[in-house]
Amino acid sequence: MPSSTVDPADPVFQLHRGGKMAVTSTVPLTSREDLSLAYTPGVARVCEAIAADPDLADDYTWVSHAVAVVTDGSAVLGLGNIGPRAALPVMEGKAVLFKQFAGVDAVPVCLDTQDVDEIVAVVRALAPSFGGINLEDISAPRCFEVERRLDEALDIPVFHDDQHGTAIVVLAALRNAATLLNRKLGDLRVAVSGAGAAGVAVTKMLVAGGVNPDQVVVCDSKGIIGRHRTELTGTKAELAASTNADGRQGDITEALRGADVLIGVSGGQIPEAAVAGMAPGGIVFALANPTPEVHPEVAARHVAVVATGRSDYPNQINNVLAFPGVFRGALDARATRITEGMKVAAADAIAGVVAESLTAEAIVPSPLDPRVAPAVAEAVAEAARRDGVARR
Amino acid sequence: MPSSTVDPADPVFQLHRGGKMAVTSTVPLTSREDLSLAYTPGVARVCEAIAADPDLADDYTWVSHAVAVVTDGSAVLGLGNIGPRAALPVMEGKAVLFKQFAGVDAVPVCLDTQDVDEIVAVVRALAPSFGGINLEDISAPRCFEVERRLDEALDIPVFHDDQHGTAIVVLAALRNAATLLNRKLGDLRVAVSGAGAAGVAVTKMLVAGGVNPDQVVVCDSKGIIGRHRTELTGTKAELAASTNADGRQGDITEALRGADVLIGVSGGQIPEAAVAGMAPGGIVFALANPTPEVHPEVAARHVAVVATGRSDYPNQINNVLAFPGVFRGALDARATRITEGMKVAAADAIAGVVAESLTAEAIVPSPLDPRVAPAVAEAVAEAARRDGVARR
Repeated sequence: MPSSTVDPADPVFQLHRGGKMAVTSTVPLTSREDLSLAYTPGVARVCEAIAADPDLADDYTWVSHAVAVVTDGSAVLGLGNIGPRAALPVMEGKAVLFKQFAGVDAVPVCLDTQDVDEIVAVVRALAPSFGGINLEDISAPRCFEVERRLDEALDIPVFHDDQHGTAIVVLAALRNAATLLNRKLGDLRVAVSGAGAAGVAVTKMLVAGGVNPDQVVVCDSKGIIGRHRTELTGTKAELAASTNADGRQGDITEALRGADVLIGVSGGQIPEAAVAGMAPGGIVFALANPTPEVHPEVAARHVAVVATGRSDYPNQINNVLAFPGVFRGALDARATRITEGMKVAAADAIAGVVAESLTAEAIVPSPLDPRVAPAVAEAVAEAARRDGVARR
Repeated sequence: MPSSTVDPADPVFQLHRGGKMAVTSTVPLTSREDLSLAYTPGVARVCEAIAADPDLADDYTWVSHAVAVVTDGSAVLGLGNIGPRAALPVMEGKAVLFKQFAGVDAVPVCLDTQDVDEIVAVVRALAPSFGGINLEDISAPRCFEVERRLDEALDIPVFHDDQHGTAIVVLAALRNAATLLNRKLGDLRVAVSGAGAAGVAVTKMLVAGGVNPDQVVVCDSKGIIGRHRTELTGTKAELAASTNADGRQGDITEALRGADVLIGVSGGQIPEAAVAGMAPGGIVFALANPTPEVHPEVAARHVAVVATGRSDYPNQINNVLAFPGVFRGALDARATRITEGMKVAAADAIAGVVAESLTAEAIVPSPLDPRVAPAVAEAVAEAARRDGVARR
């Protein structure tokens, strides 16, 4: 045991000893009668009923409230490709947040493969045990294909939280920031720094929420994405075709020149001078953790609203505002998938929780606000029914 | 919903509504400080430590007490190949029994494939999330290959309960029955009716426990297995080579002629006349559920000790006497596999719980006896250390 990596006095290690979760029975198991109802011979009647009508699994098993949190450990937090075992503490954390905020019973599934075909095959195979699949910390661009193929193959919701959880909360925050500043989403010039899982999903979500794609500029590590970047393929080629109508070229400084909004989801650093080049009264979401792309106090010198991913500054953009309620709503409606409309509805619901009390330091609710998940769940379930993907 | 299959007044369906299990957090999650310890940013330190030393996952995740209950739904109870969704109520039941009796946190994993290669690939892939794999209700002969390949591939315990759980409890019961009748295991002539997963495992376990393989005769649906059965392959060919030294041929009546012990694990029916042909003072374990191979009251006319799989007759041979303690012990010792010695130790521990109070109607403990799982766990962990498969 390399003593350098574990400090037994560290409260984090003390808290994590033995893991963070447990399974409990929700039925009594103390008498022979209990056993004969919950297990053999009684359980056989339930099995036979489900064999005759598979939809009864929704009523008589835990799938109506159970979600698998699936990762391959390839892009864990900001730590990178640390593998499935080292990813498990994060997935356990996610699982207990699911329970805490939305009563969803989640199970970590950390996969010992990073092959897209194998990940898809494994998740397809284990899907009958769960009511939804939360993909987590799978690196781009593989995450896009994994999600797309699973979404097509399965009739239960599949949701890559690093993409859509972040995107939903960003849209919620941007809605409220725009309201606060008396701006319309469709008028804002937006620069997105980062074209990984979060950057791509944020861009799509903002457009779905009303931002004009012509006025969005996305940067990756090589600079602004646009039609001039002839080397691009896949998701980035789609971004090049659908954003940056002005054909801007250059680095993040160029992307930010005159922009109203910066969304940092890159992990890189953005110089103060670049932020200074934004239009007056701007908005900066610097979401890299633990080190934001630009320090919030530095950003605040130049813009009107600042948000980060950190809990020690105002306006924490935290996925926990989205994923518990999204799955709760999808499960409640027995949705077969998660539509764009359900994600936009989730964002609107998050924004709505603090709409009456907006300030520049409270454009999103606290991650601990107990009103959020129920509001999101209700909005998501309604949207599922509206979009025709609800089974009840 | 076919009303013929679900009776809402049936207490079994009432009990199973919404499933039988839940996930709970074992850490507090109510303050920002809680979140920063259990989730980001604190959790990153735990991830980094495990990335540097993967064995730390044993200390800082739930793998030290978590087991996957894996099935393909191909041989569920006596219901046959009802598929993964219909199997889920059984796997949930198993999971909550794991918790109730041994504090093991178990998760149902019902697979949408019955291909051996795929089952092996899926379980290998998800293994990092768990401390052990309980295979369940996978039909023979596929179950033998699935278990063998997973046992070779993984460094955590793999245990097919239909084989070894049953076999352990049968050995425990036979030990006590022999003691009660002043017989030695090595002297008993044993007929096993059924050469599926349970029959094969019971035969091996009895031999490991001291029964003389020359004096064992196993029957499948075509009759006695022996060297004359030239069509046999795989596991049955091994049985033909290793048992039935006298070269008996014929049906179960022939197998039982002069036998001291009948172990029924076939689901078929055995005529009273065949049981009447056994040696005086014999032992019948008729384990088919819900209809034993021979009714216990009929068997009792001809033999001294009778056991069944049913809870409404004495001497219930119930796997729940074995699997919770076996996994608890294996996990406690951080065993890399489950050896023959660990299984024999489990059987001895089960037998030992009632050794001081033996009667013909109490050769095994009640499935609810709280002394069993701890005794089994301790014996299994000790055996793991003795057999050199313990990591602590």
